Amino acid sequence: MPRVTDEHRAARREQILRAAWRCVAREGFHRSTMAHVIAESGLSAGAVYGYFKSKDELLNAIAERSIARIDEVFHEMLAGDAAPDPADVLETVLDRLMALAENPDGDFTLIAVQAWGEAARGGPFRDLLEPQFKEIRGHWIEVARRWQAAGRLGEDAEPEQVGRVLLGLMPGFVLQRLMLGGVTAPGYTNGLRALMSPSTRAGAAG
Amino acid sequence: MPRVTDEHRAARREQILRAAWRCVAREGFHRSTMAHVIAESGLSAGAVYGYFKSKDELLNAIAERSIARIDEVFHEMLAGDAAPDPADVLETVLDRLMALAENPDGDFTLIAVQAWGEAARGGPFRDLLEPQFKEIRGHWIEVARRWQAAGRLGEDAEPEQVGRVLLGLMPGFVLQRLMLGGVTAPGYTNGLRALMSPSTRAGAAG
Repeated sequence: MPRVTDEHRAARREQILRAAWRCVAREGFHRSTMAHVIAESGLSAGAVYGYFKSKDELLNAIAERSIARIDEVFHEMLAGDAAPDPADVLETVLDRLMALAENPDGDFTLIAVQAWGEAARGGPFRDLLEPQFKEIRGHWIEVARRWQAAGRLGEDAEPEQVGRVLLGLMPGFVLQRLMLGGVTAPGYTNGLRALMSPSTRAGAAG
Repeated sequence: MPRVTDEHRAARREQILRAAWRCVAREGFHRSTMAHVIAESGLSAGAVYGYFKSKDELLNAIAERSIARIDEVFHEMLAGDAAPDPADVLETVLDRLMALAENPDGDFTLIAVQAWGEAARGGPFRDLLEPQFKEIRGHWIEVARRWQAAGRLGEDAEPEQVGRVLLGLMPGFVLQRLMLGGVTAPGYTNGLRALMSPSTRAGAAG
């Protein structure tokens, strides 16, 4: 037998992941099975199982890849001692989410919302998503901490709490976009900017 | 046959709804069937079907009742010409959500997150939840509009966009609470207050 090169393995793995992505985006989270993924991939069952032993492993790989795309934003925007405006970070994060949503293999955010439903009840998806949510929350808390250190948040603001609010804006965007439409990354970000820039007119004395 | 009084009918309906609530909170959205609800209710199949023809009708009734509890907050806080602080409205809304979460029959927010996953894909749950989301979004836009009219939001802020951000904070709270814990209504609200009250220290000049 010829030796399988790393490059070949990576391409096969990619082929299977994209097939799984299409299945889950189309059939939904519950109705997708390994059999569907195998059929969609055009590979043999043995070939697919050689890369992923279960649907959970596949979903894990999909989630990891997608979260990595979001993670990058924070690593880039928080590089060095940067103290980016939280609204700028949000806009960049939402741009990445939109790229995942507009993936030609299917809308990743649809998969994510279904995964939340499962994860919220505990079980394997919780174990999969909880550390990823925690990591993203940690990034948002760091954004808030830097913003405070730069003198832009009040001295008695608690970055831990501000970070929770900033994290909360992400599922709120994803869900609204899927359910109601009429929400865009720039519009949503402008809404946050408006809240963060209260009026200083006379009537604003509180 | 004795005539069934309205009071009796209301009590029966309530008994069935609570049984359905317990089933869905415990078994999950997909695994719950009318047979489960019938067994849980302690009534006959005929009795249950006399009130609700399908699982969708039951879920609809559960969703309507829960959303009505949230709706009340806006009707109360926006009564007359009131211009409540969005953070105060959020805190009251989150208190109501927590009451629904801590319902002795099961955590409503668990049911909600699962419903989102279904609704996001379209189909009957979308038709059920979309108008409710729209109504709540309309309330938040009105909160933003009043806040702006009171001189508390900048003149060029767009209440439509600010309302989307405020709505977005709700699923962000629910999901974080279920997945990560460590998030409370007062803490989350304080996070929003901090974002809405930027520092006026020298370093804050932007």
